[in-house]
Amino acid sequence: MYPANTVVTDVLLGKRTSRTPVWLMRQAGRVLSEYRKVREDAGSFKKMVTTPELACEVTIQPVDILGVDAAIIFSDILVVPEAMGLRYEMEENRGPVFPRRIDSANDLRDLHIAQAEELSYVMDAIALTKRELNGRVPLIGFAGAPWTIFAYMVEGSGSKTFSRARRMLYREPELAHHLLDMITASTVNYLKGQVKAGADLIQIFDSWAGVLGPDQYDEFSLKYIRRICDEVTGVPRIVFPKGAFFARRGLNDVNCEAVGLDWNMDIRESRQLMPDKVLQGNLDPCALYATRDDIRKATIKMLEAFGPDKHIANLGHGLYPDTEVDSVRCFVDTVKEYSEKVRGRK
Amino acid sequence: MYPANTVVTDVLLGKRTSRTPVWLMRQAGRVLSEYRKVREDAGSFKKMVTTPELACEVTIQPVDILGVDAAIIFSDILVVPEAMGLRYEMEENRGPVFPRRIDSANDLRDLHIAQAEELSYVMDAIALTKRELNGRVPLIGFAGAPWTIFAYMVEGSGSKTFSRARRMLYREPELAHHLLDMITASTVNYLKGQVKAGADLIQIFDSWAGVLGPDQYDEFSLKYIRRICDEVTGVPRIVFPKGAFFARRGLNDVNCEAVGLDWNMDIRESRQLMPDKVLQGNLDPCALYATRDDIRKATIKMLEAFGPDKHIANLGHGLYPDTEVDSVRCFVDTVKEYSEKVRGRK
Repeated sequence: MYPANTVVTDVLLGKRTSRTPVWLMRQAGRVLSEYRKVREDAGSFKKMVTTPELACEVTIQPVDILGVDAAIIFSDILVVPEAMGLRYEMEENRGPVFPRRIDSANDLRDLHIAQAEELSYVMDAIALTKRELNGRVPLIGFAGAPWTIFAYMVEGSGSKTFSRARRMLYREPELAHHLLDMITASTVNYLKGQVKAGADLIQIFDSWAGVLGPDQYDEFSLKYIRRICDEVTGVPRIVFPKGAFFARRGLNDVNCEAVGLDWNMDIRESRQLMPDKVLQGNLDPCALYATRDDIRKATIKMLEAFGPDKHIANLGHGLYPDTEVDSVRCFVDTVKEYSEKVRGRK
Repeated sequence: MYPANTVVTDVLLGKRTSRTPVWLMRQAGRVLSEYRKVREDAGSFKKMVTTPELACEVTIQPVDILGVDAAIIFSDILVVPEAMGLRYEMEENRGPVFPRRIDSANDLRDLHIAQAEELSYVMDAIALTKRELNGRVPLIGFAGAPWTIFAYMVEGSGSKTFSRARRMLYREPELAHHLLDMITASTVNYLKGQVKAGADLIQIFDSWAGVLGPDQYDEFSLKYIRRICDEVTGVPRIVFPKGAFFARRGLNDVNCEAVGLDWNMDIRESRQLMPDKVLQGNLDPCALYATRDDIRKATIKMLEAFGPDKHIANLGHGLYPDTEVDSVRCFVDTVKEYSEKVRGRK
């Protein structure tokens, strides 16, 4: 065991570890009653995001309650467009909504490249959380991939097809690249700030990667992820390209340590396509609705498919809000116990 | 050229044709002002679906206006669960909503296996449309894949994750199989009825294929699609497994003539994975937002990647409602002209 738990960062740095590390996307919140209490008292999601003490509190909850091997700072990918000048609101049951959206070159005039200082509440939350964690587990910083941020800024909200955002790629590719450039520069500033504030590693979430075809993904998304990974150095970087099964081969060349897999991506095939990467994932979040016994079986099956090396256990998507806490704990415990046992044997 | 246009069915039957055929998912409606007029007069989507004269009229519109090589009967995949006993409503801006949904074995008691006669309005629409088409182009019948119908029946509406429907697969797999069995039997009756009424070929839409992992897709979706394709014979069958990139190898063995591809599935890779199938697709529907010149280029690039044989040109998803009619026509005309020219050269 580790006095300070560095099992996540050790795997990312290519070191041998005594077991497979585990954390969960959306672990900060949603399934924990302790989170819901803080959320209720805060009154709004954005209040929590912008108040370092609250963000810190819910960031650490899953470390205490679930025993995960890393904390991920409680925040939102859309703080970046907001810092660039495009305010958004988080509507209950609907998700993020931008009162103004980007539709033409004119709309770019009101935007600027965000500086880390403009997101000081995130930097403060990271610094505070690092102090409070006191070395127990590493702290993950994060940002949305430029394409995903672009998709929200142009669409104005979530969408099943993001056809408005994709239309701009076809109709005004230069405008799209201009905006993507601005988002990328802002994101680099933001992530460098997070690292300076104390983030031990970072993850880039490309939540809407899967709505692009392979050629457009290369041109409008992967290109900018590459740039971020080339510029934000000094900490390990994980890229999670949700739905971009077709981009796996290309991701093997990106300057990052790890790639996250959806639950519908075949593990062995993904290993072949990305032999140089640590892989993260990928249990179906719905598998946690099963009985404890079936959760253990599914988790072990996943661990066997990844093998003991170059793997960070996680789900293939964020935790769903109605998951039972004991089921999440069963997943975390199974990863720890089984992977430690397997290595003990060798 | 064909006196009666049989280019779609000829390709499906493995015959050489003078050019690549083309039709569009959701071509019946949405982008045509002629459709919107009928829709407005009818007052509701379901009124159109259940009134053979109206369904016939909007089914034929794209043949006249766009020059597509096949008509697809105007209907809805959710008429099957409704005939089984689960009523739904189509809400403007929200999509389908089921006032009751399937949550437990108890809820199955109110359901029965639907007979074709219970959907006589669809059979009447098909028979009427066949008469009106008078052999100009073949008529496509269709149904949802059992997994996709199941997903709506259990979820009660559309969903980003369909986590409620997927939860049942983990918690009550026997109940899930029981319901899938009933849906499959109903769908077989329904599709056989459509063939009897005059459908020249059928397409099975697995719209939510992509939310399942590979193992669950085999067990809870592909198995039932196989059964439908084994039982509904006598006409060519196209399967469109939206998002199920991981299932392509398995689909090569299904007893169907063609498989539809999403716009994010690589064409050459799909050919390798499904060498025995005619492939259908797969231009990004958003590509039709581009200039005419770019639409032509993108269409030709797609045609070149598929090659002249075993291909039915289509989009990789349904037409988006705000697409310009002239852009759709540009796609259709480019397929026809370019593919005819290419074959003339050989």
